[in-house]
Amino acid sequence: MSNVYDQLKMLGIELPAASAPATAYMMSAQTDKIVFLSGHIAKKNGKVWAGKLGDVLDIEQGRKAARSVAIDLIATLHSHIGDLNRIKHIVKVTSLVNSTPDFTEQHLVANGASELFVSVFGEKGKHARSAFGVAQIPLGSCIEIELIAEIE
Amino acid sequence: MSNVYDQLKMLGIELPAASAPATAYMMSAQTDKIVFLSGHIAKKNGKVWAGKLGDVLDIEQGRKAARSVAIDLIATLHSHIGDLNRIKHIVKVTSLVNSTPDFTEQHLVANGASELFVSVFGEKGKHARSAFGVAQIPLGSCIEIELIAEIE
Amino acid sequence: MSNVYDQLKMLGIELPAASAPATAYMMSAQTDKIVFLSGHIAKKNGKVWAGKLGDVLDIEQGRKAARSVAIDLIATLHSHIGDLNRIKHIVKVTSLVNSTPDFTEQHLVANGASELFVSVFGEKGKHARSAFGVAQIPLGSCIEIELIAEIE
Repeated sequence: MSNVYDQLKMLGIELPAASAPATAYMMSAQTDKIVFLSGHIAKKNGKVWAGKLGDVLDIEQGRKAARSVAIDLIATLHSHIGDLNRIKHIVKVTSLVNSTPDFTEQHLVANGASELFVSVFGEKGKHARSAFGVAQIPLGSCIEIELIAEIE
Repeated sequence: MSNVYDQLKMLGIELPAASAPATAYMMSAQTDKIVFLSGHIAKKNGKVWAGKLGDVLDIEQGRKAARSVAIDLIATLHSHIGDLNRIKHIVKVTSLVNSTPDFTEQHLVANGASELFVSVFGEKGKHARSAFGVAQIPLGSCIEIELIAEIE
Repeated sequence: MSNVYDQLKMLGIELPAASAPATAYMMSAQTDKIVFLSGHIAKKNGKVWAGKLGDVLDIEQGRKAARSVAIDLIATLHSHIGDLNRIKHIVKVTSLVNSTPDFTEQHLVANGASELFVSVFGEKGKHARSAFGVAQIPLGSCIEIELIAEIE
């Protein structure tokens, strides 16, 4: 069993501070052994990473944005659980891609997040997934991702 | 521990009759201690509260619509559980906002629901959340909200 | 208690081979007794069933597409569980309809899936549900459906 923090270090990933919500909700909520994470939006250089896929952003930029959101989600999991090694399974990931009505490659964008979870958590990182295009996302973010994880 | 029904009365909220679905599904389903509520659409004066945010509806109207859907969700929880005091935790709320491609304040609209859950349930009402803009909603409703709750 | 496979036969439904995901995720993931299925897109004659509701596809075509996705979801459940008779409850179905900004009949499209679950599983097939219109879906599919089921 590899240590998740060693794995993060090997991938050159430094976890950011966990995001704080602005209002009457939380970035994570738990029921029994299941942790639900709120939708996390994309950030770049501390600002919202805005724009639509199919318009100002291309697939490769979308993939990078999805990967960065996945890192933020892991930071929130770390903040919630205290020890990422207690994660038994990333169960479900839902990737909402800010899309023009013609952009149909949401799955390729979402792979930026899905592949990171597998890089970091190995087999435990393999998840069920939905990816689809939405009309907009808060603050114009190019992607929003939520997830469900099971902990030991 | 406050009584949820006293709290509703203090807020001047009268629960409507729970909505009935039109077809082969249910407004709520339970597995073990987790209750899943179907997406509820917005109503005003007994009719669907239709319109897009960023077009005919402004943020304040969207917030009110979200608050009214939250009340309908609580009515469905009451109908499903029988006693709202048995709610241990509002776990996850997903707010779908009927949005033009340019409207980026879905989080402010969703706050109308999130804040109501906290007003009614206190700390137990704090939830993980996703809010995003969708292309349309059944019958043109301006918002659709689903939730997951844990009961004792 | 009816046998699910007898019921499928009576409805003239032959389960296709379960879909395989293209990348770092799975078509299903389980935690305890809850199975989460990935979003499944629509196929027709082995190709993606593409198009928007409100544009090239009408409600009846959408209903048929939703029904066909429901059959694919049942195939994935069969592949995951091994025996469909172990399903205790279809808990939650989420139907994302590829919609023009003006199409408001997502619920009627989604009924194509919801009604099939009830035809196949009877009372156990009745579920909580959300249906809404999205800006796009991977590969341009006209509908994407995910579900949560509880097994014995």
